[in-house]
Amino acid sequence: MKKVINKTNDVVTEMVDGVVAAYPHVIRRLPNTSAVVRTEAPIANKVGIVSGGGSGHEPAHAGYVGKGMLDAAVAGEVFTAPTPDQILEAMKAVDSGSGVFLIIKNYTGDIMNFEMAAELAEAEGIKADYIVVNDDVAVEDSSFTTGRRGIAGTVLVHKIIGALAENGAALEEIKRVAEKTVANVRSMGVALSPSIMPGSGKASFELDENEMEIGIGIHGEPGIERKQLATADELAEELTQHVLGDLSLQEGDNIAVMVNGLGATPEMELYIVNRKVQDILQKQGMEVVRTFVGDFMTSLEMAGCSVTILKLDDELTELLQSEASTPGFHV
Amino acid sequence: MKKVINKTNDVVTEMVDGVVAAYPHVIRRLPNTSAVVRTEAPIANKVGIVSGGGSGHEPAHAGYVGKGMLDAAVAGEVFTAPTPDQILEAMKAVDSGSGVFLIIKNYTGDIMNFEMAAELAEAEGIKADYIVVNDDVAVEDSSFTTGRRGIAGTVLVHKIIGALAENGAALEEIKRVAEKTVANVRSMGVALSPSIMPGSGKASFELDENEMEIGIGIHGEPGIERKQLATADELAEELTQHVLGDLSLQEGDNIAVMVNGLGATPEMELYIVNRKVQDILQKQGMEVVRTFVGDFMTSLEMAGCSVTILKLDDELTELLQSEASTPGFHV
Repeated sequence: MKKVINKTNDVVTEMVDGVVAAYPHVIRRLPNTSAVVRTEAPIANKVGIVSGGGSGHEPAHAGYVGKGMLDAAVAGEVFTAPTPDQILEAMKAVDSGSGVFLIIKNYTGDIMNFEMAAELAEAEGIKADYIVVNDDVAVEDSSFTTGRRGIAGTVLVHKIIGALAENGAALEEIKRVAEKTVANVRSMGVALSPSIMPGSGKASFELDENEMEIGIGIHGEPGIERKQLATADELAEELTQHVLGDLSLQEGDNIAVMVNGLGATPEMELYIVNRKVQDILQKQGMEVVRTFVGDFMTSLEMAGCSVTILKLDDELTELLQSEASTPGFHV
Repeated sequence: MKKVINKTNDVVTEMVDGVVAAYPHVIRRLPNTSAVVRTEAPIANKVGIVSGGGSGHEPAHAGYVGKGMLDAAVAGEVFTAPTPDQILEAMKAVDSGSGVFLIIKNYTGDIMNFEMAAELAEAEGIKADYIVVNDDVAVEDSSFTTGRRGIAGTVLVHKIIGALAENGAALEEIKRVAEKTVANVRSMGVALSPSIMPGSGKASFELDENEMEIGIGIHGEPGIERKQLATADELAEELTQHVLGDLSLQEGDNIAVMVNGLGATPEMELYIVNRKVQDILQKQGMEVVRTFVGDFMTSLEMAGCSVTILKLDDELTELLQSEASTPGFHV
């Protein structure tokens, strides 16, 4: 296991130190937690937006704290939900009295702990609500998940909801737009190689030299099919068609696209995939308003990628295009 | 060889298609070339800034075309210098009459081809000048290089010189600041695993399961020493001390820092390295004005990282901090 780390027990706390040390003008660490908050938080008359989840998905989630996206991100241990007490501390740190909205990826542990934190916050007089992102069209009821998993589409939810909160929207309005965004976003991924857990050194799964797994989860959860490694065009076709098949899109619809790297795939390859994705979308008459290519929701050193499509209306388009300035995402 | 590609001969042209398809509001492809130029180019009364080099270092160099950085980037085949005719086309496309400035990494092929392009451009009446970046302190006279190699520090040169050109500086002024920047920037890297050439499928070098190579080049050129895999803190210490040892810094000096991933190293690990780098710099009394952590100058799927330090004066600080908005870099 070749990793650039110190003690395996310290990877999360040292990572959080390293993120904060890189961007002290944007974020600070909440004392005695693995939560990162905007330096200005709490911001008056603004709903605080909080997300987080297991570590190993960097730049998610700490990288999305900043103007126009999150007010706080809470990091759990690698591939493990953050604890309710830490989520609660983050909620308290970003609440200005306007309430706090949680963006949760659909994993059983995350939902349990974020929901518990929301209840604890409400008991302390903080208005709280949340959305669960479940954009992965690959499988229902995977390991760790009832229903569909939340993957890279979550970053676009951060973007849209972050922009809305920055505009001063109230909690109810944020909930409405969050539900619409989640209803409109779909993703699917493929893996060529596994991620390796820093503690055990174990691979999240095994693949033969010429195999790939379609529909993989970001913790290495099983996908739809394991088969011979395909070309970039074939992969792009398969992922994009699966995603399109689950969205009711019509010619001329506006969409946003994300081609996300899972950690170890060169950006060159992501662009080669994007070429074909855009070709398919153009042929179907889609209007691509904005494309994002890069490592946004990773799985440690997993090789592979995912394709995300977000159907846009005028409201979502405006929110997507407005300024965001965080360590890991810029518009 | 697991790569998400189509035909190996097409990787560069398809990558360029994919980059342009992702960011049509920022860049366009120069017809019949692998060069990418800003959509607005040529920009009146502005010196055109052109860089480029072999492909496989993405987001370098196409990802740095945009406001406040490059006007054009020319992509060669993987790890191969772009041809003079393509560089010339890029120079012609960005020249507004104010001239063109080339930022070249110190590799024999790049220097030969960029210099030839500059001569051809001058023969066509375009004012041209250039700088050679040689920030890698690891070795002198490596494969492909006489003197020191140009690596991740090149991105900070793009940033500084791009900002200066955006301000309307003349070619002579750009040359002066470029020379100062190159004199002030130093880097060194380490690899844990090699890059794999898309054509041959060959690894750029071989390392045992517990080995790393200190001072590696971004094409897998030999470094200083091959030894047992160290901890993140030990690696950070070794790279940072080598870099600091080659810069004449004094307590209280302002610097910029880049912790650059070589392609396959999880961002988590880059942040763990950054934690220690910042700790060392703080103990030495350095004032870190700005830090950049991420994959900026990669080597396909090589695992590893590099540390870059740029010594700043007031002029360089202002240029570093001014707005840049490109697909791969934002300030």
